[in-house]
Amino acid sequence: MRILGVDPGLTRLGLGVIDAGRARQARMVAVDVIRTPSQDSSDVRLGRIADAFDTWLDNYRPDVVSIERIFARNDVSTIMGTAQASGLTMGLAARRGIPVAMHTPSEVKAAVTGNGRADKKQVTHMVTRILKLDSPPKPADAADALALAICHLWRGASSALSTPGSTKDVVDRQRAGRQGDNLTPAQRAWAQAIRDAR
Amino acid sequence: MRILGVDPGLTRLGLGVIDAGRARQARMVAVDVIRTPSQDSSDVRLGRIADAFDTWLDNYRPDVVSIERIFARNDVSTIMGTAQASGLTMGLAARRGIPVAMHTPSEVKAAVTGNGRADKKQVTHMVTRILKLDSPPKPADAADALALAICHLWRGASSALSTPGSTKDVVDRQRAGRQGDNLTPAQRAWAQAIRDAR
Repeated sequence: MRILGVDPGLTRLGLGVIDAGRARQARMVAVDVIRTPSQDSSDVRLGRIADAFDTWLDNYRPDVVSIERIFARNDVSTIMGTAQASGLTMGLAARRGIPVAMHTPSEVKAAVTGNGRADKKQVTHMVTRILKLDSPPKPADAADALALAICHLWRGASSALSTPGSTKDVVDRQRAGRQGDNLTPAQRAWAQAIRDAR
Repeated sequence: MRILGVDPGLTRLGLGVIDAGRARQARMVAVDVIRTPSQDSSDVRLGRIADAFDTWLDNYRPDVVSIERIFARNDVSTIMGTAQASGLTMGLAARRGIPVAMHTPSEVKAAVTGNGRADKKQVTHMVTRILKLDSPPKPADAADALALAICHLWRGASSALSTPGSTKDVVDRQRAGRQGDNLTPAQRAWAQAIRDAR
């Protein structure tokens, strides 16, 4: 299974592709950040993102796309651009029949570090370890996209296709609040192996 | 000049095409509303909107797209879906090199009715008159998309490509607050002709 993680944004949109091997092991295939200049108008920036994202879908042909779920309570100054970039990538993936899964930041942090409130440094550290990279992924702000892909691999498709505000979605978020309590035995074993490797 | 007006939304996305003739007269070419079922997941709904919107761009080949500008202070329950649908249509138009103009609801109401706080009924009434239609456009919730196209025709490209939060954008919004004071002499004459026709 090939997973494309997407950390949406208008100024920086992170993309990370992983391949899932046996026992839910993950191998990094590609990582990058699409940047658009803030002096350009929103539509021009979204047009560039559309082209770049479609090129990634063409080149890497993911089986599933894992995107960060955004909430309206986030920072108001950036929420519109982030929501627009997220809607664009969701629509471009879905029109190809690619399933789109959404995961909250706390779900991602919990899946990758075991702590739903982990900081950026911890996430980058664990992404580097989990993917067995020699050094942290570059560009630095691309680690979150890989974390989104890893999160989807470990949480499975359980939260895919859940609609914001649905009962299922609320349950997912409550689970995420319990920071990793929803791991399967295989995931728990894997998490233990990671802790041992530290 | 052919203008495609877009009233963005996830449940209902209004589309209206007008052709501009001499003296900024407008003729309706097409109008419809793309609907997606609320029980579907957001990504599937956005995928459908992407296909439908690209089909409209293929069929009608607009010279410019006029989209409602959304503010983060709008209703939180629907803002995410609306922002996502707006970002998707903006990106799909911009990647084709089509200029995208954004107009606030009060700018649209002011341009079409002379009153930035006009209600839906007034907007529909004036859209019907301006486009010389025998009856109000159907579906009923498509009038706003036509109003967005008319607004762009009359306000001109002055507000196109303005970036949210920029000084220019603030000026645009202040102007809109003055409800039509920013009309050109030709627009004012046209507005007077409409008032006379009532």
